[in-house]
Amino acid sequence: MAPTPPTVPVLLDLTIDNITPNTNRINAQCADPRLRYLMERLVTHLHDFARETRLSTDEWMAALNFLVACGQISSDVRHEFILLSDILGLSLLIDSINHPKPAASTEGSVLGPFHTHDAPPLPNGSRMSADPAGEPLLCVCTVRDTRGNPVAGATVDIWETDSSGHYDVQHADRGAPSERCVMVSDDRGRFWFRAIRPVSYPIPNDGPVGSLLERLGRHCWRPAHLHFMFAKEGWDRLVTALYMRGDPYETTDAVFGVKASLIVDLDRVDAATAKEYDAPELEGAWLLRHDFVLVSEEETAALRDRNAEEALAKLGLGKLRLVDHLPVPELD
Amino acid sequence: MAPTPPTVPVLLDLTIDNITPNTNRINAQCADPRLRYLMERLVTHLHDFARETRLSTDEWMAALNFLVACGQISSDVRHEFILLSDILGLSLLIDSINHPKPAASTEGSVLGPFHTHDAPPLPNGSRMSADPAGEPLLCVCTVRDTRGNPVAGATVDIWETDSSGHYDVQHADRGAPSERCVMVSDDRGRFWFRAIRPVSYPIPNDGPVGSLLERLGRHCWRPAHLHFMFAKEGWDRLVTALYMRGDPYETTDAVFGVKASLIVDLDRVDAATAKEYDAPELEGAWLLRHDFVLVSEEETAALRDRNAEEALAKLGLGKLRLVDHLPVPELD
Repeated sequence: MAPTPPTVPVLLDLTIDNITPNTNRINAQCADPRLRYLMERLVTHLHDFARETRLSTDEWMAALNFLVACGQISSDVRHEFILLSDILGLSLLIDSINHPKPAASTEGSVLGPFHTHDAPPLPNGSRMSADPAGEPLLCVCTVRDTRGNPVAGATVDIWETDSSGHYDVQHADRGAPSERCVMVSDDRGRFWFRAIRPVSYPIPNDGPVGSLLERLGRHCWRPAHLHFMFAKEGWDRLVTALYMRGDPYETTDAVFGVKASLIVDLDRVDAATAKEYDAPELEGAWLLRHDFVLVSEEETAALRDRNAEEALAKLGLGKLRLVDHLPVPELD
Repeated sequence: MAPTPPTVPVLLDLTIDNITPNTNRINAQCADPRLRYLMERLVTHLHDFARETRLSTDEWMAALNFLVACGQISSDVRHEFILLSDILGLSLLIDSINHPKPAASTEGSVLGPFHTHDAPPLPNGSRMSADPAGEPLLCVCTVRDTRGNPVAGATVDIWETDSSGHYDVQHADRGAPSERCVMVSDDRGRFWFRAIRPVSYPIPNDGPVGSLLERLGRHCWRPAHLHFMFAKEGWDRLVTALYMRGDPYETTDAVFGVKASLIVDLDRVDAATAKEYDAPELEGAWLLRHDFVLVSEEETAALRDRNAEEALAKLGLGKLRLVDHLPVPELD
């Protein structure tokens, strides 16, 4: 049954107390039930925030100007709003809601603002960092399912900073992509590559988000890590990262990304390993071994739905149902 | 007593359920108690919004890109975030919180994004609209206090659209300001000027906010009005507007600005009035008479504090006190 078009409310003499239901009523003209629900929750929270803080006109204007500044510093290679979402814990939350992980699988971590779509496809064994100042690191990884079977043909986006703690896109003179690549797992689920040992680095702090962190008395550092993103049809996209144990920012990551299961110990490349991966020059260099475990899309969707239903039932927001896996209010 | 520096929490293994208190704990390092409170409320609402809607990764990214687009279309003469705040009812709410009006005074209305700081000071009787296509309108106004005494020397910013429904700043070839001016009330509290009869107009709908309104099934029109902003030391700044009775958008203003007390009837200039205001060419033209009533800063501050205390007591957010008229949590 199509929803009955709501009557347009009379918008007159709006006050602190009646502006919220009236805004929601006029937005209820929206034909898309999901967008209607999103707007109803957004407006309610936004207005409650203003009422609870008695937000001053100066604070309101400062906030709007902050948002303009975030938009204006953003570009093809910088997304200040992702950074803002990251430091407010929202990115971690969105990832956790959308990519729940069964116990046997690899946990997710924040995507961050530095993934690009121009990373070169490279064959196994390639060098993905051109930085001669970095400490060489051989990474030897596998991709498996939760029962331990290899997953062949998964594409793996990999990206890290150079030894100065900057991603390629942070260099004004960036020509070609560097410190990033896309690999494909082989028929035994393996992929391996030459990288550099990651270093801790500050997130971009020359913009509005950096100023906010400073006013909050927070540092802007992330512990050393290597980003990974796995994709293969039928498998839930895995965005994750591996963190180097012992980093001084291990438990105070500015963007809340670290999970204990993602903290790794580096080893040294021995002669047998150097030979096996045809990397004689790396004998004695850093070695990172890791096995990643993917979850099927089907299993993830079922878990996400179950989590959503349980959480919504506890919230007392009225009768909701999942449509395309996303909650919308039940029509009576 | 200075507040005890909070212990930095260990940020590890953050989840849907523990990300909010942990984000709030790390933000609690902020030395400014007001900013601490604003952030605590902001993060809590933002996270609750994501949890209640199970916001999808695609929706999250669409929202962040929407915010970038709002920032990028903004300029010295366009503030898309004010427009967004307007259509979400937030601007009306902020104005109502900050400028409560005792019964005897003129109500406020939304500032909108079209006030500028380059309007020319003009003497009484001046023509503030250069648009020959507009219907001439003589405005004859007074500024008084709540006991009826004239308020002399108040500066009055006045702005309206041209007859096509556009503010000067919406024209790409804008040279000098037009359809705007700053007047000063005379010793009898009077100010008068030549304008044009306001017309209804769409708010700028070629940007992200216009697209949002369309997706919500809302129109983007404002009823015909004339903006006024009054300032004088010791008096609460009054941002308001007068709306023409009978406008087709009178009760569906896209930005929620209309109040019954601000809807006015136009009259016609008679011979005596034309003579009194030295405007013989305007005999028979439209006439707008209005008396504005200002409230002292002191009275407004007291009323705002009382409203805040009453509202906060009802919210059950714990013990709050007003510092510089703005709520912050009590330290035990």
